[in-house]
Amino acid sequence: METVAIIGATGAVGREILSILETRQFPLQQLRCFASAKSKGQTLSFRQKTIPIEVLEENALQNIDLAFFCAGSSISKEWIPKTKSLVVDSSSAFRSSIPLIIPEINTHVLKKEDRVIASPNCAATILLLPLAPLHRRFRAKRIVLSTYQAASGAGAYWVRELENETKAFIEKTSYTNSLPYPYAFNLFPHQSALDPSGYVEEELKILHETRKILEDPSLQLSASCVRVPVLRAHAISANIEFHNPFSLEEVSSLLSKSPGITFPPPTTENKFPTPLDATGKDLILCGRLRKDPSQANTLELWAVGDQLRKGAALNAVQIAESLYLLHNKTVTY
Amino acid sequence: METVAIIGATGAVGREILSILETRQFPLQQLRCFASAKSKGQTLSFRQKTIPIEVLEENALQNIDLAFFCAGSSISKEWIPKTKSLVVDSSSAFRSSIPLIIPEINTHVLKKEDRVIASPNCAATILLLPLAPLHRRFRAKRIVLSTYQAASGAGAYWVRELENETKAFIEKTSYTNSLPYPYAFNLFPHQSALDPSGYVEEELKILHETRKILEDPSLQLSASCVRVPVLRAHAISANIEFHNPFSLEEVSSLLSKSPGITFPPPTTENKFPTPLDATGKDLILCGRLRKDPSQANTLELWAVGDQLRKGAALNAVQIAESLYLLHNKTVTY
Repeated sequence: METVAIIGATGAVGREILSILETRQFPLQQLRCFASAKSKGQTLSFRQKTIPIEVLEENALQNIDLAFFCAGSSISKEWIPKTKSLVVDSSSAFRSSIPLIIPEINTHVLKKEDRVIASPNCAATILLLPLAPLHRRFRAKRIVLSTYQAASGAGAYWVRELENETKAFIEKTSYTNSLPYPYAFNLFPHQSALDPSGYVEEELKILHETRKILEDPSLQLSASCVRVPVLRAHAISANIEFHNPFSLEEVSSLLSKSPGITFPPPTTENKFPTPLDATGKDLILCGRLRKDPSQANTLELWAVGDQLRKGAALNAVQIAESLYLLHNKTVTY
Repeated sequence: METVAIIGATGAVGREILSILETRQFPLQQLRCFASAKSKGQTLSFRQKTIPIEVLEENALQNIDLAFFCAGSSISKEWIPKTKSLVVDSSSAFRSSIPLIIPEINTHVLKKEDRVIASPNCAATILLLPLAPLHRRFRAKRIVLSTYQAASGAGAYWVRELENETKAFIEKTSYTNSLPYPYAFNLFPHQSALDPSGYVEEELKILHETRKILEDPSLQLSASCVRVPVLRAHAISANIEFHNPFSLEEVSSLLSKSPGITFPPPTTENKFPTPLDATGKDLILCGRLRKDPSQANTLELWAVGDQLRKGAALNAVQIAESLYLLHNKTVTY
C-alpha cells in the first residue's frame, strides 16, 4: 500500500513526474498532488482518476510513503524536515549534504538508511551522463563549459512568457515580459544570483555537483550559463581536459556502451543533435566529439537533453525506483 | 570624383553598408549597386536618390574607385580579379592571403599599395575587439570559445526563415524551413562544412583569422560555433588563458580605454549585455569578466555585437575609410 505525493504538482517538473509515473507503471496505490494555494480547486488526471490539488498544511505529509519535492528550495527547506517519508528532492536545498544521485552513475553511494535523496541540477545532469564514463577511464582534469539553457529550467511561467513575448514580436504588438531580460529572439546570462566571484549560482552548482557525483574534489570546472530562447531542452558545449591520453575511437566506443545517452555514429555531414531532437526523449543526445588540438588530452563535446525529463522529472523517478529496489520493493519499468 | 560600388547590395550586409555610407557621410559622388539577376529591375534609395540595381556583367566594374564585395566567396573569387579598383571584401575568399583588417586593431599592417583588403569573420571580430588589447598586455596563450550566432550571419533569407517558422509555430500551423535544421525555438551547430578534424569551417576561420590579426601563430584556440534563434547579434563566451598574470582591475581598466567596445561598470547585479542590447549598435558590448579559478592566468569573458554592423558592414566601411586616409583622401565621419 504505497502512497506517493508530488509537491509542486502543477509546475513544469511536477506535471512531467506525473506523466512519467504513469508511463513507467510506477508502483503506487494512491497519488496525492500538492501545489500552492492559487491552484486550490484544480484537479489533475492520473491513471483515469481525477486527483484534487491539495495545499500543504500542518500534518499534510503524514501517511505518505514517498514524496517528490519539485516546488523550489524554500518549500523543500520548510517541508522536508516535517516528513518521515522517503523523499526525492529536485531542488538544490540539501544537495551538498545528502546523497546526490544520477542512477546511471552513482547508485553505489545509496544506503538503505538514506531517506532524503537529491536530484541534481539539470545542466549538470546533461554534462555528467557522457562525462562520468569518460572520467572513470581517462580522469577529467578541467572542464570549460558553456550552456544553452531552455526556458523550462526556470519553470512553466518562463515558457509561457517566452511564447507570449515571441507572439507579440511576430505580430508587432507591444509586450513587456516580467523576466529579468527581454526574451523573444534574445538570450542572456543565467538569471540566478551573482556570486562575488563573478559566477552565478547556477554555474557554481554545476561545479560542486559535478565534483560530488564524480567523487573527485580536485576536478576543475568553469561554467558560463546562458538562457536561450528554446522551450524545454538544454544544450552544452564542453571542453574537457583529461589526465590521460585518449583516442576518439576509445571515446566513441565507451560512450556508445554507456547508459542514459545516445551517440550517433560518426558522420562526414554537419548534422548533430539539437534541443528539438532531444525534446520528449529520455536519453541525452551527444555529438560533435573532436580532439581539441590546442591542448594535449582534450576533448570537445556537445550534448543536449530534455531539461524536464532527464534533467529533472525522469531522474527523480529513477531515483525513487532505485530507492524502492534498495528496500526490496517491486519495480516494474 | 569617387564612384563606389556595392556588390551584393540587396543582401543583409549590402543593405547595411548602404545605410552606414549614408549615416557616416562617406565621400562618394556616385553609388552603384549590384546584385544577382533576380533583383534586376529593383531599386535602392541612397541620399534621396533612386539607385537602380545592376547585374554583374563583363566590364561592369570598370570606372569604379572602390568596391564593397558582400555577395559571398564565389562572387568575390570570380569578380575581384577583374576589377582594378580598391576593394573591401567581406567574404572569406582571400582572407588568408591579403591584409585582414579590424581598423581599431591593425591598420598598421596596411600599405599604400594594398588594393584588396579583407574584412574578417563576424564572430572573430566580436572576439578580437576585447581580446586584442588584452593580448598586447598579457599575451593570450589559449582560448576556448563557444558562440551564440544569429540568423543574419547566414544572410537575410535565414532571418526571414526564422521569423516565418516561428510565426507558424506560434500559430500552430505547419511550416518546413529550407535550412539544414528546424530553427523555431531551436539551435544547432553552425551549418558550415565539416572538416575531417571534426571542426566546422566557421570554427577554423576564427582560429586562423585570430592568429593572423594578432600576428601570433602560436596562439591556440578551440571554437564551438552554434546558431541560435536570434535575429542579428552574435554573442560569445570566451575562456582565455594568458601567459602573464593579470588582475580584474587591470583588465577592466584596459578594456574601458580600448576603442570599439563598451564595458559596463562592475555591478553586483546579474545584468549583462544581450544580443538585443547590441542590435543596431556600432560597439561590441563586453561583460561577465571573471577570473577562472580553475586555472592560473585565465579570464572568462562575454561579448555581444551586431553581426551586420561591426561584424560585417561597419567594419568594411571603416576599412574603406582607413584606405582613403592612406591615399590622402578626405574622410568625414
